[in-house]
Amino acid sequence: MASLTQFNLAEAIAVLTRTPATLNALLRGLPNIWVRCNEVKDTWSAFDIVRHLIFGERTDWMPRVLIMLENGEARPFDPFDRFKQLKESQDKSLEQLLDDFARLRRENLAALQALNLQHEDLTRRGRHPALGVVTLSELLATWAVHDLTHVHQLSRVMAHQYRDAVGPWSAFLGVLRCTGHSAP
Amino acid sequence: MASLTQFNLAEAIAVLTRTPATLNALLRGLPNIWVRCNEVKDTWSAFDIVRHLIFGERTDWMPRVLIMLENGEARPFDPFDRFKQLKESQDKSLEQLLDDFARLRRENLAALQALNLQHEDLTRRGRHPALGVVTLSELLATWAVHDLTHVHQLSRVMAHQYRDAVGPWSAFLGVLRCTGHSAP
Repeated sequence: MASLTQFNLAEAIAVLTRTPATLNALLRGLPNIWVRCNEVKDTWSAFDIVRHLIFGERTDWMPRVLIMLENGEARPFDPFDRFKQLKESQDKSLEQLLDDFARLRRENLAALQALNLQHEDLTRRGRHPALGVVTLSELLATWAVHDLTHVHQLSRVMAHQYRDAVGPWSAFLGVLRCTGHSAP
Repeated sequence: MASLTQFNLAEAIAVLTRTPATLNALLRGLPNIWVRCNEVKDTWSAFDIVRHLIFGERTDWMPRVLIMLENGEARPFDPFDRFKQLKESQDKSLEQLLDDFARLRRENLAALQALNLQHEDLTRRGRHPALGVVTLSELLATWAVHDLTHVHQLSRVMAHQYRDAVGPWSAFLGVLRCTGHSAP
């Protein structure tokens, strides 16, 4: 299995552990232009992205690990509703959201480590409602890369606010030419 | 001047102040796969990106601010050699580089604030060796967006290391479809 040879649980946990502090350092206390503004209509601000990450901690990653370990391919994961979280936590400050995310991630990583997964467990299989059969290592790798895809998005959404302010330097600033890479 | 209406010095400084702590939270202590690996030949690892940011603090941003304030359009900026830094700091650890970057950024922001720039100063003009006439507000906005473009790049280079490990989820992870947006 090609994907397994590249996956290492400790390495994935190293990324997952750092994301709350990274977002905290990047976002806490920033003026509203950086955290409340988005790109175009119906795209996400930094606020929305942190709420999305919180929703994933609550409903997606560890719940799917447990469904996979308990049911294998017999029970598909519950679909992940990427828009439901936008109706939740509307009245929280960014500081509260960052605190919530840090706490939930800490609890989830403690639960993951309590499973004491062995190398052979990483090939355990489950069923994704759209993608079909997936492995535990693929799910855990995706959890880490999902963090990175939202760091990627955050930097792009923030840079977008100064797309005109940089004047002719926009030619040299790759992030301003990124149009996003959402799934079709 | 359209670009000036969007620029606010305090907002730009808010981003510039946070970047060292963001990189520190994201990178310090990570296993080598995340910080020593790049995408393809001749692209940058996290190590190279931090060295590039250090080089910018030493030779680019504040030196250009001072050239602009002292000489206006009469003296073009010195060209920024993006490859020279790759010959420097080869033997430093990532932790040393992160400390160097944090110290240099702190010193440069102190020097910037000591200039006590007024709103009218932001329209002062200088000459970029390739882009022609630019304003002080454009230079300062670019300094902040340049940080963000490298956060964008860092998340992409890191995610690339797990491009196979995520299996079929790669279809949903935008950062894995980003091919970079370097200037032509």
